[in-house]
Amino acid sequence: MSMYQGGGSNSPDDGTVRVIDMRSDTITKPTPAMRRAMAEAEVGDDVYGEDPTVNALQEKAAKLFGMEAALFVPTGTMGNFCSIMAHCWERGSEMLLGDCAHIFIYEQGGSAQLGGIHPRTVRNKPDGTFDLDEVESKVRTSDPHLPITRLICVENTQNICGGRVLPLSFLKELRELANRHKLPVHMDGARLMNAAVSLNVPPSDILQYCDSVSVCLSKGLGAPVGSVIGGKKDFIARCVRLRKVLGGGMRQSGILAAAGLLAITEGAARLHEDHENARTIAEGIHSLDPSVLQIDLDTVQSNIIVFQLVSHAVTPGQFCKMLNTYDPNDSLDIDVRVSMLATDFKRDIRCVTHHHISADDAQLVLKKFRAVVGRVAGMKG
Amino acid sequence: MSMYQGGGSNSPDDGTVRVIDMRSDTITKPTPAMRRAMAEAEVGDDVYGEDPTVNALQEKAAKLFGMEAALFVPTGTMGNFCSIMAHCWERGSEMLLGDCAHIFIYEQGGSAQLGGIHPRTVRNKPDGTFDLDEVESKVRTSDPHLPITRLICVENTQNICGGRVLPLSFLKELRELANRHKLPVHMDGARLMNAAVSLNVPPSDILQYCDSVSVCLSKGLGAPVGSVIGGKKDFIARCVRLRKVLGGGMRQSGILAAAGLLAITEGAARLHEDHENARTIAEGIHSLDPSVLQIDLDTVQSNIIVFQLVSHAVTPGQFCKMLNTYDPNDSLDIDVRVSMLATDFKRDIRCVTHHHISADDAQLVLKKFRAVVGRVAGMKG
Amino acid sequence: MSMYQGGGSNSPDDGTVRVIDMRSDTITKPTPAMRRAMAEAEVGDDVYGEDPTVNALQEKAAKLFGMEAALFVPTGTMGNFCSIMAHCWERGSEMLLGDCAHIFIYEQGGSAQLGGIHPRTVRNKPDGTFDLDEVESKVRTSDPHLPITRLICVENTQNICGGRVLPLSFLKELRELANRHKLPVHMDGARLMNAAVSLNVPPSDILQYCDSVSVCLSKGLGAPVGSVIGGKKDFIARCVRLRKVLGGGMRQSGILAAAGLLAITEGAARLHEDHENARTIAEGIHSLDPSVLQIDLDTVQSNIIVFQLVSHAVTPGQFCKMLNTYDPNDSLDIDVRVSMLATDFKRDIRCVTHHHISADDAQLVLKKFRAVVGRVAGMKG
Amino acid sequence: MSMYQGGGSNSPDDGTVRVIDMRSDTITKPTPAMRRAMAEAEVGDDVYGEDPTVNALQEKAAKLFGMEAALFVPTGTMGNFCSIMAHCWERGSEMLLGDCAHIFIYEQGGSAQLGGIHPRTVRNKPDGTFDLDEVESKVRTSDPHLPITRLICVENTQNICGGRVLPLSFLKELRELANRHKLPVHMDGARLMNAAVSLNVPPSDILQYCDSVSVCLSKGLGAPVGSVIGGKKDFIARCVRLRKVLGGGMRQSGILAAAGLLAITEGAARLHEDHENARTIAEGIHSLDPSVLQIDLDTVQSNIIVFQLVSHAVTPGQFCKMLNTYDPNDSLDIDVRVSMLATDFKRDIRCVTHHHISADDAQLVLKKFRAVVGRVAGMKG
Repeated sequence: MSMYQGGGSNSPDDGTVRVIDMRSDTITKPTPAMRRAMAEAEVGDDVYGEDPTVNALQEKAAKLFGMEAALFVPTGTMGNFCSIMAHCWERGSEMLLGDCAHIFIYEQGGSAQLGGIHPRTVRNKPDGTFDLDEVESKVRTSDPHLPITRLICVENTQNICGGRVLPLSFLKELRELANRHKLPVHMDGARLMNAAVSLNVPPSDILQYCDSVSVCLSKGLGAPVGSVIGGKKDFIARCVRLRKVLGGGMRQSGILAAAGLLAITEGAARLHEDHENARTIAEGIHSLDPSVLQIDLDTVQSNIIVFQLVSHAVTPGQFCKMLNTYDPNDSLDIDVRVSMLATDFKRDIRCVTHHHISADDAQLVLKKFRAVVGRVAGMKG
Repeated sequence: MSMYQGGGSNSPDDGTVRVIDMRSDTITKPTPAMRRAMAEAEVGDDVYGEDPTVNALQEKAAKLFGMEAALFVPTGTMGNFCSIMAHCWERGSEMLLGDCAHIFIYEQGGSAQLGGIHPRTVRNKPDGTFDLDEVESKVRTSDPHLPITRLICVENTQNICGGRVLPLSFLKELRELANRHKLPVHMDGARLMNAAVSLNVPPSDILQYCDSVSVCLSKGLGAPVGSVIGGKKDFIARCVRLRKVLGGGMRQSGILAAAGLLAITEGAARLHEDHENARTIAEGIHSLDPSVLQIDLDTVQSNIIVFQLVSHAVTPGQFCKMLNTYDPNDSLDIDVRVSMLATDFKRDIRCVTHHHISADDAQLVLKKFRAVVGRVAGMKG
Repeated sequence: MSMYQGGGSNSPDDGTVRVIDMRSDTITKPTPAMRRAMAEAEVGDDVYGEDPTVNALQEKAAKLFGMEAALFVPTGTMGNFCSIMAHCWERGSEMLLGDCAHIFIYEQGGSAQLGGIHPRTVRNKPDGTFDLDEVESKVRTSDPHLPITRLICVENTQNICGGRVLPLSFLKELRELANRHKLPVHMDGARLMNAAVSLNVPPSDILQYCDSVSVCLSKGLGAPVGSVIGGKKDFIARCVRLRKVLGGGMRQSGILAAAGLLAITEGAARLHEDHENARTIAEGIHSLDPSVLQIDLDTVQSNIIVFQLVSHAVTPGQFCKMLNTYDPNDSLDIDVRVSMLATDFKRDIRCVTHHHISADDAQLVLKKFRAVVGRVAGMKG
Repeated sequence: MSMYQGGGSNSPDDGTVRVIDMRSDTITKPTPAMRRAMAEAEVGDDVYGEDPTVNALQEKAAKLFGMEAALFVPTGTMGNFCSIMAHCWERGSEMLLGDCAHIFIYEQGGSAQLGGIHPRTVRNKPDGTFDLDEVESKVRTSDPHLPITRLICVENTQNICGGRVLPLSFLKELRELANRHKLPVHMDGARLMNAAVSLNVPPSDILQYCDSVSVCLSKGLGAPVGSVIGGKKDFIARCVRLRKVLGGGMRQSGILAAAGLLAITEGAARLHEDHENARTIAEGIHSLDPSVLQIDLDTVQSNIIVFQLVSHAVTPGQFCKMLNTYDPNDSLDIDVRVSMLATDFKRDIRCVTHHHISADDAQLVLKKFRAVVGRVAGMKG
């Protein structure tokens, strides 16, 4: 089942049971401050370039990224799509990217479907990087039989690999490789700010190795809608054209940009809490019965927790349903009046922390886990 | 010059001079009620289908359109693009549309560029319709030399023709033609509500002749961002896929939908004022020196006023600049402390009324016109 | 009905009735000399550039065209498609071309369907040219709403207009317009050699105004298969890539090129005969009962004869069937034991001369016409 | 370096030195019988479906394949491209294929570039098959984030894997998997006839597990130009359209089909000789100094011989150059007056047998190998 096939909670949500939705950080709702900012935003027609709030967001984002210019777009998918089409501007383009890249797996193959770009994958390692020799071996030579390699994409943090943060040393080496072949590097930085927090560096330290980036404002940063692309001025000018043809040229989008401005400041400033809560939950899971659940703590580097259901007594889907359901028999402990939403994917289960999950919630979640794991441990596998 | 190449006002905007922006109704800013609704909107993750405000907007719009289902998208361009790709779902598709269609002229050729659809134009008559015999003669037969005709598009009101409202009788005949050839009809209804107001019928009376429609919330209706597609359930399901691949699958877009709900109710309810103001301005222009400006009053059917600069003393661009500039010599009349923005296009000049243009503004605009026309009349041609 | 929907002869073809196929010059079969040349051709693997006969053809064609380089491709459709994609190499391209252009009407919309190029038509005049002011008015300005005009296409001789030859003065003016806008001009020269013969100039005199051309070897020139693209070296290098991705990179294609070499020499040298026969037939038709058939002799400039069925006693399809059928009652004249194939298109009927139609055949054709026209004249309209 | 970057022989070719070109079986020239058949072929305009020789080839091929219908196309690339576009007829398609597939590696990414199909690779095993569990895990579920899996492609014999023949048991299991997911299977059967010869079954025994196939006539079968697609009638009707838009609708292509008819009969009947010669050469290489060359004899199943240069004294490129160059010092043996062409690819070297390589040539080749290997063995690594 796709990680994205949600399915709402079938839990009792009567006010006495706490629903904790950890399916994704995309589900975050705007903060009161964001709502206020949106209500009061000064706006204009951004198709004419006249929306002051959008312009402010773009300037601020460009500075944050250490890049010449930035562009607000409605989604991360459009941010990536504009970016890769802007780099692959001419016919016959191929891009290299990880076989677990969101662009490759979860963006409907738009790069090929509409963009005519041939994707060639390199195997993602569990840490989200890939083997640079494999990358280099897949750069095409010039021959009419072959497409032309025009782009390398990386993803940071790497979602499918569990929110892994790409080491700066990897990015530096990739940059050198890319320079040798005169190839641009695009970063799908949907969760770039999480990577920066995890590495404790400003985002521009990461992006010094990239030609472009697309950053989501609507995941952990909490804005309701939108992403920002960063890159050189020429590149952004192409993205303006591409955003238009894709139907992303919105009008008074300063409404959304107002929340975006808070997302990249206040939202970013609190991301470390999500990482701390993720760590708490991961360590708690690690302390549970290892015949039911297992987790490699090294993999939990940001706000994504992926662990393995090793018991065969239930399927991951059933396990998630147990998390989701409030069962009075679970425990005598009132605190476990919790309905929790997680995402199952084959043998893995994914939970994501975000600004609606407090440190207290993390403790509740762990109690819920303990109760469910206890029940599973008592079943025959 | 493109109708869309704005260029901001170079007028003094010091609070004492009133700036009246009639370039387009796209520049409208949200009303206070919309801002409040956005601030208070109940939201969810619309990618999971969990945003109640988006769902409410879609249901309401579907009912308004008299269609099975509706879908919120970030822009009219995306609304049209999803619609035509959903109809032209298979390889080798051709669509028939007017040679003045917004889809053909102002959407960057996306239908072909990314959608692979071959556009074949029929000549738009000045009233926005086209010759149905020409349409029929251009429906392709089945032959490997030829693409397959899969769609007819109309635009209502027709923008380039000056906001002309398509007669219901035309749509009825087109529908019969389409039925004979088993072709769907898509309406670019960016300003559908203006057409409905002008005809004094509910929009569903117009849309009974169409398979799908895309309606802008961010033009005369005043919402900051967004359009709504209407059509059959299967069609909308395809549009959901297409919106996703285009990068239009936003998250907590209930923020925007909250304004959209007001747009299709309160915004629509006041459109007749824009039409009245447009009529006032058009008649005022008609009464001015016909050696400078001329206007065919029959063409002013909604909120768009297109007139011709017949004097060769100045170019349309210069005329617009004169409208735009506050000149103390214009008049002793304090009321002409007005800087007005209009759009020039070849020999034509276009003004659009919208909710920021009051009946008083219409009078101010006419005074400004009178002053500028007077100056032009005094020049040598 | 499409001009291309053939439908074979249903005539008696027992050896005593002569079948004269004038549907198109595409039906020409190779001459004995061509068959010999093909059988003896020295060949190699042209994907490696090692076929000496292909190389010889390409060199000879480039010289003939007055261009830097040339490329052999399997069809005229591929010749045009490679050319327009090579010119429209970057995203967001639009091309300007006649609304009767073969590229627009009869190549399945491939430019848009697979090539992503937005076609914008200008109205073809009856003589195959178009209004240059209209062309100029349709060159796009730079604006994200708009595609980028990247190419102008002409067709010479213009097929749908009846094989009309573009005047050199028109091409010269078009070149100047193109230069002003820095646009390349591609000529669909499927029947370029007919144009050159008609103008009595070498093809390079025509092509001096063009950046590229695609010329068919398999129409009037008589080769069984193939076309040749001409252009600058860089342009041809792109075409090599495009030919490959389209699947036109053939192996020992020297077999076909051997016939092509004869086509551009001996085939071209006899084209004037086709023109003479076309003229003979056109004048003969002109002398027939004008209440049945009418023809504008000025339109017959090459090997295509288009005339109008003005009688309503029969449809054009029925008229063609009468030409096609041997009817012993037609005449006592043994010479009218002729079954003739022509193509009907709406009210027009098209005949094409080629190397299987001799001067004697032209006389037979006229006798057949006389008999059929006589019968139609006797019917009630 | 690409396997396709040929580079001609720089050897003396004065008649006394024998040039043996084993770069590929694509370089084969037509036999005298083929040349005669081409010269005498009865032809017609195949765009009208009127070429009797093309029709005969298509009927014969359909029968051979055990399929409803067949279609002649100019190249294998076009055969594959038409086939995959015909299967992936609707928007949003993804295909599954081996990461060593010719379609993925050597067809310029046309499936994505022009066809808009997202390719998803599964890892080819050394024997040309792939893990069926991996295939199954990559079939997409229904979700707007995801493209729609619409096709599985296999290649037989698998070129990059060294001409490996897919076991019938593998194809049977793949068919069952495909049936479970209602997916068609396309076989890139460029060298299908080699697979049939190797398995000693009629090609229809292989193709019973496939929905479509593209078979090259211009490789080991010896025809100068062309491939044949096989499939259901509806599928072939789509391919006719696609061939047309790609520019593959040739006119009197019976010239080429005449050679094709001999290719699938006489050409196929002698393929076993190529396999025997390949085996002889492989065994000869196996008997040479294993510190210079190594070969896994199990991999040589058809007419392709891939072996590894293990000595580091020379690069594969240098080794090929040594094979290519006639060196009087090589040996006193007159028989080694041989200049041989092979293809290097990383550490591998590839030789291909075909109808210009006789059993005697195989012996000459081995003598040449022995001489060159001897020289390399004497160098310092």
